[in-house]
Amino acid sequence: MNLSTRHWWPDLPMRHWARGYGRDTLLRDAVAAVIVTLMLIPQSLAYAQLAGLPPEVGLYASVAPLLAYALLGTSRVLAVGPVAVVSLMTAAAVGEHAAAGSAHYLAVAITLAFLSGLILLAMGLLRLGFLAHFLSHPVIAGFIAASGLLIAASQLKTLLGVSAGGHNLVEMLAALWAQRGHVHGLTLGIGAASLAFLFWVRRGLQPLLRRLGVPPRAAELGAKAGPVAAIMGATLFTWAVDGGAQGVKLVGAVPQGLPPFTLPLWDQALWQSLLVPALLISVVGFVESVSVGQTLAAKRRQRIEPDQELVALGGSNLSAAFTGGFPVTGGFARSVVNFDAGAQTPAAGVYTAVGILLASLLLTPALFHLPQATLAATIVVAVLSLVDVGILRRTWTYSKADFTAVLATLVATLAVGVESGLVAGVGVSLALHLWRTSQPHIAEVGQVPGTEHYRNVLRHQVITHPQVLALRMDESLYFANARALEDRINAAVAQRPALRHVVLQCSAINDIDASALDSLEAIDQRLRDAGLQLHLSEVKGPVMDKLQRSDFLQRLSGRVFLTHHQAAVSLASAGD
Amino acid sequence: MNLSTRHWWPDLPMRHWARGYGRDTLLRDAVAAVIVTLMLIPQSLAYAQLAGLPPEVGLYASVAPLLAYALLGTSRVLAVGPVAVVSLMTAAAVGEHAAAGSAHYLAVAITLAFLSGLILLAMGLLRLGFLAHFLSHPVIAGFIAASGLLIAASQLKTLLGVSAGGHNLVEMLAALWAQRGHVHGLTLGIGAASLAFLFWVRRGLQPLLRRLGVPPRAAELGAKAGPVAAIMGATLFTWAVDGGAQGVKLVGAVPQGLPPFTLPLWDQALWQSLLVPALLISVVGFVESVSVGQTLAAKRRQRIEPDQELVALGGSNLSAAFTGGFPVTGGFARSVVNFDAGAQTPAAGVYTAVGILLASLLLTPALFHLPQATLAATIVVAVLSLVDVGILRRTWTYSKADFTAVLATLVATLAVGVESGLVAGVGVSLALHLWRTSQPHIAEVGQVPGTEHYRNVLRHQVITHPQVLALRMDESLYFANARALEDRINAAVAQRPALRHVVLQCSAINDIDASALDSLEAIDQRLRDAGLQLHLSEVKGPVMDKLQRSDFLQRLSGRVFLTHHQAAVSLASAGD
Repeated sequence: MNLSTRHWWPDLPMRHWARGYGRDTLLRDAVAAVIVTLMLIPQSLAYAQLAGLPPEVGLYASVAPLLAYALLGTSRVLAVGPVAVVSLMTAAAVGEHAAAGSAHYLAVAITLAFLSGLILLAMGLLRLGFLAHFLSHPVIAGFIAASGLLIAASQLKTLLGVSAGGHNLVEMLAALWAQRGHVHGLTLGIGAASLAFLFWVRRGLQPLLRRLGVPPRAAELGAKAGPVAAIMGATLFTWAVDGGAQGVKLVGAVPQGLPPFTLPLWDQALWQSLLVPALLISVVGFVESVSVGQTLAAKRRQRIEPDQELVALGGSNLSAAFTGGFPVTGGFARSVVNFDAGAQTPAAGVYTAVGILLASLLLTPALFHLPQATLAATIVVAVLSLVDVGILRRTWTYSKADFTAVLATLVATLAVGVESGLVAGVGVSLALHLWRTSQPHIAEVGQVPGTEHYRNVLRHQVITHPQVLALRMDESLYFANARALEDRINAAVAQRPALRHVVLQCSAINDIDASALDSLEAIDQRLRDAGLQLHLSEVKGPVMDKLQRSDFLQRLSGRVFLTHHQAAVSLASAGD
Repeated sequence: MNLSTRHWWPDLPMRHWARGYGRDTLLRDAVAAVIVTLMLIPQSLAYAQLAGLPPEVGLYASVAPLLAYALLGTSRVLAVGPVAVVSLMTAAAVGEHAAAGSAHYLAVAITLAFLSGLILLAMGLLRLGFLAHFLSHPVIAGFIAASGLLIAASQLKTLLGVSAGGHNLVEMLAALWAQRGHVHGLTLGIGAASLAFLFWVRRGLQPLLRRLGVPPRAAELGAKAGPVAAIMGATLFTWAVDGGAQGVKLVGAVPQGLPPFTLPLWDQALWQSLLVPALLISVVGFVESVSVGQTLAAKRRQRIEPDQELVALGGSNLSAAFTGGFPVTGGFARSVVNFDAGAQTPAAGVYTAVGILLASLLLTPALFHLPQATLAATIVVAVLSLVDVGILRRTWTYSKADFTAVLATLVATLAVGVESGLVAGVGVSLALHLWRTSQPHIAEVGQVPGTEHYRNVLRHQVITHPQVLALRMDESLYFANARALEDRINAAVAQRPALRHVVLQCSAINDIDASALDSLEAIDQRLRDAGLQLHLSEVKGPVMDKLQRSDFLQRLSGRVFLTHHQAAVSLASAGD
């Protein structure tokens, strides 16, 4: 087997594609870059607004991170930049330390990106990518759905033209209700029209383009650029009616120029309090990025290297921190568009970065009259597709434990906030997993007549022997479930005075830890004190190796049998 | 099978032994009670001193709890009262809120017993006894050994006749070092002599008694009463030399009388801050009590009911709180003595309670001249037998993960304190367990020539097919390890262009949670996109039931085979 070679310090993944980069690949990458750029401009502005930051910060965060990822990342098509959930988490974390819109707020966001970058980089170099696996899918699904609802709710104030705050759904809705008398009509009109247009774009634009004779593929991609049309239309309309003078909140003056060079704040107290949010942002960002990266890579039989992805995302966030940006990760929508548009290599990301750079140099004056409500509508339409309420029904049908984990995450996120929701979800899912494995399935087995097979006495007509108790444990023996075996054997021995032998069939036991070994010794000792013997059968090789490193096998009252049938035959005849 | 019947509200276990209680049983119980009483008097005084409480509180805590346990407990021989580790934990918890020796200190200790009683009772009624299983044996062993060292260190100040404090080993030794110039010679002499005598009693008294013609069994039991001789000797000596006047700290005036009626403090802030210590004390007490109870019950083919034990210990602690006592549990040494002395039923506990009651009514004036250093010596000798350093060597040999858990518990307990040590130990052992199961063993399997058996390609000479990848997962599929399977399959598919089929042999998979189901769907989708099929073989019944509640099987690109051999034969021939 040709295992992939591993290095402690990974060589740049770039070398896999940079060599042999030809004109055909360049053309495909460039076409993809144009489409992604058109999609990213409104998204970047909108997610900066969601994070409570000035719009140009969204553009800055879409330049350097794309370059860093192109250099370090292992996915050919992942597009890195601001994404909805991470922007919401940024707003929640930074809002604890600074007022939205202040210079300090931006400085804290930059520091958060820096810390998140350091954490991702460290996790990558220490090969801790597996830690992300402890976010179970129900927790992720519940968290993403709740975040989508929270994000949509957070944009309502902008759509209605009022001021309101809140970190969870209850606070947000209460703040909106308090402002119900101050809804701004024109803003609401622009917001509602933008929403309607964007929802129609998702469903209706592609069929329309095809009816107009546009080839299917071009129609599909053209529809992705629909939000740009919404932005142009809304900007023109607001300019024409002078909406700003009538009180419609505008994006306003956006500085023209290259991303600035920035540094994080060196403030120990701030770092300490940002540590947990930065860790959660890192893990959520990593999980989102790796899921989409793996899905897209597999479609072309490529693969990504999760630990190297951590390094790449770490580099991307550090680069964001040094160029006036905020926390970023690999986005789902933009990566899929990049893939569908035919991007072949991370060079497409480089061209996209150049496109965004041109936009931030040349386009920003044109954004002056863009209403914030239109950006809010862009966000609402994007995130509502994340809200998958079906997960509740599906997990309810499949497994009550998983359903509980989804529900706990959903409720905690909506009722308390993003960070508490995530922590609660991980806690509940770990607790449920431990609880399940601490209640192992232990079957008493007997011989299926005429065979050498031994099956559960409760499910099959089998032969048992009054002096022999044969138990099969369907779980590895470890500290949380070893007592269950003790209890089961104690109960059986107390109930059956005729019992002389207990045989433990170990075919499903993949490991025995020190606690379980102590339990086995205690069981053996108690059985011996009561005049019984303990035997083992079908012990797996690695488990046997481990037992031989202790003195358990020397002290065992009974024997170790290769097959369970040998044990049954030998003990039944000895007992007669 | 005759399963034991279970009730939501358990009937009193007393009925099992009270009916048919005859003169013979009464005699045996009474003899055991006399011996246990002789052992308990010095122990109760000493553990009260260890907990920072007046000596009579130790006697009070040995009366009502014994009665409550006799009524509610399921062990025939467990002796409940103050024990070393719980007394140390009490001192640590109460010391945070009150000065040792003050009336408030006793009131807080009573409140702690009350809270601990409520927690145990609630855990019992909710059948949460399994929670104690999450204290792994390495953690318990490390904690008990470290506590033994801490307790011994805490008694050094009394043996040296100086004042010193501290909650961990470093603080204690530093405080003693600062007092090195103030060692009280006579106290040290009495302490050293008591220590030497008590160590000799453990080893030398029994052989001496036998050489003097005492029958073996009486010699064994007589040796257990050795500490009483130490106490009498030291008291007489101190009285004769008027040690009190020379600065030897004495037990002093102990109130004569029945245990008082007391109530816990109703102080919400105090309850909140005592909640965690009370929980830890409850869990540690329960674990100690159940271990000894199970060991002794099994020797007579009896059994104990862990959830009912929680109720009984809860009642014992509540009764301690109402009679001027402090947290109690089933003690190891006293229960073994009770068992060895021939106790047959919990009535022995009732007689012991009467014995202690008589002592607290009549004997307390005789304790005036008892030096505290002798009680300290009693404690040191008792706890040093708990310090099992061999656990480090044994776990090192057996399993590095278990060794890490012992070491973490030991170091945290000694360096920080009892509560931190316990929490650190549980955290480390859970983390290591999750880490291990998140790195599952996944073997590629092939056919053993001439058989229908499929084994690991790395360990056996087997036949594989270039178009078929057969993997066996040796762990239940759950959120923390599902990605490992995804990664493994992604890697294999990227490396082998000829691959057409992936077969997952599910014989060792006892459960598939919702995350793992999502992973299987993602794997299936990616394989399908790359032109491959995913098949399953040997899926267990309960797992199949669960899969059928989702739409996974309808969407699966491949098939589900009953045996792995059928899969291999069918796919190899289809591929040709």
